[in-house]
Amino acid sequence: MGCCHYESVAEGCDSAFTVDASRITFGRGCLSEVGARARALGMRRVALFSDERVARLPLFQKVHASLKASGLDVVLYTGVRVEPTDASFQDAARFASEARPDGYVSLGGGSVIDTCKAANLYATHPADFLAYVNAPVGEGRAVPGPLRPHIACPTTSGTGSEVTGITIFDLLSLHAKTGIASPLLRPSEALIDPDCTDTLPGEVTAASGLDVLSHALESYTARPYVRRPVGPGPRPMSQGANPWSDLGCREALRLMGVYLERAVKDAGDREAREQMMWASTLAGIAFGNAGVHAPHGMAYAVAGGVRDFRPSGYPQDEPLVPHGMAVIVNAPAVFRYTAESSPERHLEAAGWLGADVRGASASDAGEVLAGRLLHIMRAVGMPNGLGEIGYTEADLGALTKGTLPQQRLLQNAPREMTGPVLTELFRQALRYG
Amino acid sequence: MGCCHYESVAEGCDSAFTVDASRITFGRGCLSEVGARARALGMRRVALFSDERVARLPLFQKVHASLKASGLDVVLYTGVRVEPTDASFQDAARFASEARPDGYVSLGGGSVIDTCKAANLYATHPADFLAYVNAPVGEGRAVPGPLRPHIACPTTSGTGSEVTGITIFDLLSLHAKTGIASPLLRPSEALIDPDCTDTLPGEVTAASGLDVLSHALESYTARPYVRRPVGPGPRPMSQGANPWSDLGCREALRLMGVYLERAVKDAGDREAREQMMWASTLAGIAFGNAGVHAPHGMAYAVAGGVRDFRPSGYPQDEPLVPHGMAVIVNAPAVFRYTAESSPERHLEAAGWLGADVRGASASDAGEVLAGRLLHIMRAVGMPNGLGEIGYTEADLGALTKGTLPQQRLLQNAPREMTGPVLTELFRQALRYG
Ligand SMILES: NC(=O)c1ccc[n+]([C@@H]2O[C@H](COP(=O)([O-])OP(=O)(O)OC[C@H]3O[C@@H](n4cnc5c(N)ncnc54)[C@H](O)[C@@H]3O)[C@@H](O)[C@H]2O)c1
Ligand SMILES: NC(=O)c1ccc[n+]([C@@H]2O[C@H](COP(=O)([O-])OP(=O)(O)OC[C@H]3O[C@@H](n4cnc5c(N)ncnc54)[C@H](O)[C@@H]3O)[C@@H](O)[C@H]2O)c1
Repeated sequence: MGCCHYESVAEGCDSAFTVDASRITFGRGCLSEVGARARALGMRRVALFSDERVARLPLFQKVHASLKASGLDVVLYTGVRVEPTDASFQDAARFASEARPDGYVSLGGGSVIDTCKAANLYATHPADFLAYVNAPVGEGRAVPGPLRPHIACPTTSGTGSEVTGITIFDLLSLHAKTGIASPLLRPSEALIDPDCTDTLPGEVTAASGLDVLSHALESYTARPYVRRPVGPGPRPMSQGANPWSDLGCREALRLMGVYLERAVKDAGDREAREQMMWASTLAGIAFGNAGVHAPHGMAYAVAGGVRDFRPSGYPQDEPLVPHGMAVIVNAPAVFRYTAESSPERHLEAAGWLGADVRGASASDAGEVLAGRLLHIMRAVGMPNGLGEIGYTEADLGALTKGTLPQQRLLQNAPREMTGPVLTELFRQALRYG
Repeated sequence: MGCCHYESVAEGCDSAFTVDASRITFGRGCLSEVGARARALGMRRVALFSDERVARLPLFQKVHASLKASGLDVVLYTGVRVEPTDASFQDAARFASEARPDGYVSLGGGSVIDTCKAANLYATHPADFLAYVNAPVGEGRAVPGPLRPHIACPTTSGTGSEVTGITIFDLLSLHAKTGIASPLLRPSEALIDPDCTDTLPGEVTAASGLDVLSHALESYTARPYVRRPVGPGPRPMSQGANPWSDLGCREALRLMGVYLERAVKDAGDREAREQMMWASTLAGIAFGNAGVHAPHGMAYAVAGGVRDFRPSGYPQDEPLVPHGMAVIVNAPAVFRYTAESSPERHLEAAGWLGADVRGASASDAGEVLAGRLLHIMRAVGMPNGLGEIGYTEADLGALTKGTLPQQRLLQNAPREMTGPVLTELFRQALRYG
């Protein structure tokens, strides 16, 4: 729609798309509504989730006070692990099973919101840990019913986890990230208060902002929904690009082009930080109803295989690759490859991100977009390839092997992502020009 | 956001906005999913609502068959009145109270979907009819809790009722339209199948399409949310223009500019009819989270006071002014008056609707937009003012008096809408140039 992108339904493919979205409230100061909203959802005993660093910020006190002022009983879980693992998820689930809250509030970045979703799931519908985890790593069992109400309050302008039915973790035994996906995991509502990002380190603004950028770019270039073969069972969240997600993607990319660098370089640029928060919400709603593809699929292997990388701005106790960094480092290679599937979309995106696209032709689309991504990555201090995170040629096999199980994402790409293709993309991503 | 429109929060005004949206499925053929979706919502005994004309179409059989094939018990209510009244709402509510369905499916235009919402409300939470009706006409009592699940299937590209928490009717004793508004009235999900509009008469495509156009234009030009004084109680649906609703409005206006005339003039233009359906969904989501203003507020008086107008394309048994016609006939006068509140937005809108805005200045905005609206109205056969619907100078007092109770809408306008202002706007709307 809007153009020929969705005009003809391919043989055996879907002719409709489904959009789900939870209630969101956006604006400075809206965190103070959390107590009243928790009550309106029927909560009486609330588990407030956060991580150590966020729990020390004044905004944590603000949320805690609002819940108390509404007469709610509050139990605290501030032990969320940044870049969570199966072990840390299970710790949180044990806490929730014992504390027996009747509702949840999460305050933090994607790590906190995702951990809260998992705790809510396993406390509400107890099961073996791998039961609900995406196949083929887990059993991919359907979530049996609604969870307890959950109000998600993001403090990074990043993951969009507050509006998605996805939770991601690192499965330690496999050195690979994977997740759980169900519309039932989506928080009941989200309170998105740009004031939260005042204290966000520049490095986190950069990595989480590039996660947003890639959500929008991957959803916009994903296989169109009219090319997705209809399977048994219900339409998946990763249903492909569609006219609804396109709207959010376009606006998020436009905002990224204007505000990302400003938000990273000057924590006091309130307009830029506010617009980043809005872009992350829009991109979250978009990718939650379209799905990401190869850069995210590859990121799970990149993050899972970390050896001793310890980026500044993040907790230093254990090595980690921030999620947004693990994603964006693959992006230039991927989009150079996918451009031929929809050159006009790749060029449009480059233009919104600030590239000069005058006179560019379809065959330039991949180069122009990859070049613009690299320009932005450098401007906000991202590594210049997987090499700087500690990977070498010798790791290409393991990275490929770690990515192939992400079929949900790989099939959402607009071109085939076979083993040899992935190996070549990882090779190109080792070091950029 | 996006520009200075939302930058500074006025003294005592709101600094946040809330967005609610129900699940939608959009695409040709998606009506066949209704049975499975009704089951997934837990329905076992379904009341299928429609009006006489729609109930004779093959698509009614299709929905009925899909519900039966999913093993559901179906009771039929096909007596919906086009442009419903308090009497017709109460008839439907009596039916629902007696039939005791555990879920609802509505198939039709806004008249059918609105009637189904009302029947569900009064059968689930019985009360005197005026209890839930908007004050000051009714008591404005809050809906006490969730309704039964309801799947709305629109067959006009018009009202957006499938995604809003609003239901509208004509209160016969007052000769005025009014309604009930609550997020709890919003259907659980919507199935939006452009195939439905294949049989839509050109006149209905025109009137319902202009309703869509005005939803988008009113929401886009409504008082910004940062200018709405915070009251007691929760944020209302009519919270004003905001960055979320702006996205849907812009796209809907753009689609109107390209496709409205084509869709009206050629029922076989499937692309145009499909895009009109998509525009109506987008505008519905937008105005359901921003609110309309004066053209809709005035329309309630225009429709309520009808004497003997019987437009072609509509049932001929009783006089009626189709909703979209009652709205759009006020629009040129209103937007000429509101333009000074945000000339750039009024000009942008005129541009999307196809006006040549090169060289136009802020002070031209009202004239340019009004002129474009009149051009479109003529092209699709709308009356050239209230005079052609049967109103004269002598009715200006009654029309004003019928509009003033619509404070929810009038306060959402970007300029003051006092009695004298409304009278002058109605006077200008009697006959256009
Ligand atoms: N569920 C989804 O849909 C989804 C989507 C993308 C990513 N993810 C997951 O989200 C995680 C990444 O989340 P993230 O990028 O939001 O970062 P994060 O939650 O890992 O936080 C990064 C760091 O920033 C700190 N921090 C957060 N907010 C702060 C603030 N306002 N002020 C100061 N410090 C603050 C945290 O304490 C932490 O040290 C990854 O595990 C990723 O896989 C989930
Ligand atoms: N709830 C809301 O948010 C909302 C918003 C705007 C308007 N409304 C209300 O909706 C009503 C108007 O609804 P509408 O404009 O959709 O029209 P409608 O439901 O009144 O239908 C108009 C005519 O078209 C016929 N029709 C409908 N679909 C058809 C099809 N596919 N093929 C052939 N004929 C078809 C109907 O039988 C009827 O005769 C008004 O009462 C108005 O106040 C409600």
